Amino acid sequence: MLTELEAHLEPDEGRPGTVRPGGRTARVRATVLRAAGDALAEQGFDHLDLAEIARRAGVGKTTVYRRWGSVAGLVADLLTDMAEQSLPRARTGSVAEDLRANARLVQRTLTDPRQGALFKAVIAAAVCDARTAEALHRFYDTRIAEWAPCVEEAVERGELPEGTDAREVVRAVSAPLYYRLLASGDPLDEAAADRAAEAVVAAARAGVYVVRG
Amino acid sequence: MLTELEAHLEPDEGRPGTVRPGGRTARVRATVLRAAGDALAEQGFDHLDLAEIARRAGVGKTTVYRRWGSVAGLVADLLTDMAEQSLPRARTGSVAEDLRANARLVQRTLTDPRQGALFKAVIAAAVCDARTAEALHRFYDTRIAEWAPCVEEAVERGELPEGTDAREVVRAVSAPLYYRLLASGDPLDEAAADRAAEAVVAAARAGVYVVRG
Repeated sequence: MLTELEAHLEPDEGRPGTVRPGGRTARVRATVLRAAGDALAEQGFDHLDLAEIARRAGVGKTTVYRRWGSVAGLVADLLTDMAEQSLPRARTGSVAEDLRANARLVQRTLTDPRQGALFKAVIAAAVCDARTAEALHRFYDTRIAEWAPCVEEAVERGELPEGTDAREVVRAVSAPLYYRLLASGDPLDEAAADRAAEAVVAAARAGVYVVRG
Repeated sequence: MLTELEAHLEPDEGRPGTVRPGGRTARVRATVLRAAGDALAEQGFDHLDLAEIARRAGVGKTTVYRRWGSVAGLVADLLTDMAEQSLPRARTGSVAEDLRANARLVQRTLTDPRQGALFKAVIAAAVCDARTAEALHRFYDTRIAEWAPCVEEAVERGELPEGTDAREVVRAVSAPLYYRLLASGDPLDEAAADRAAEAVVAAARAGVYVVRG
């Protein structure tokens, strides 16, 4: 168990052998965010409690209160970390393959027992909590920005029409998968992921995502 | 205020002048579901309470407990009613126009202050409550079945390829709108609705929704 004193020591960034950069402060953060993610996935946002997360993480309660202040603050930081730790975009040289990789990554994430439950919990929390909603929107903004160059480069290569809105294309790949997860409950399988990517490529080729005006 | 006795009288179906069929029992149901929808939109699922809904509806508490049993039971019945009361599909003779009408209906519903809040609350509730999730899936199943003939008739007219999965096409129209509402937070305007419909028509024409195997 890390003590509060340890948690407040200066970070010793980049020390060899640490899994994540940033020394003790960063390790405490990683441990607490891991515990928060586990608790969210298991019991949802409504039953989250900072003291319980501190206990799960083996970190002093005061550290958690001082650093994150509230459950919403902790979940916002978790989403920032999830965006930072997410996999980088594909670079296959083909927009159809890149977007299929994106769709399959989203599908695998949403069907992973822990990650799927975590996303559902955070999305449900964002419905009632403005701070969580903002953090969630920033998460998607970061992920969309990561993948947008797949589309921009496809436009440069002449695969897609000039003026195609890259971010809108990336959003459209994820949308049918989230719709299944949250609304219709239809199977969220790899075929659904592949179809989502193919549909977007067909629509993008037809110029549907070209910005007008 | 309707008394419990009145609520349990035989329904006098089809009496002239009633807004909805089914007499007093049906009127009590409509009044209670309206109150439940208002409460859900205002305060979300977690703070729903059958006694409070009975009070809002001006209906005896025992009637509400006896008829719906639990908040989840009441929300499931609300979703059944929402599916029954929803607008019928378009019949313009053009799949592009029909699906644009569908997208605009979904967009208007989700951006309506009461309806948007209600859908968010129910979707959030479905994350934690299996019975609500089932009722939500039945709601979308009913709505998708209502609009699928727009696609089936387009296939018959030769507008879309043989073997096109009509239900999958209808799902794909709504998906980008729900993604904006629940995940990315991007604007949910008429342009987004029209683009969603156009993208699906382009992908359907390209054969992406043709069932394989």
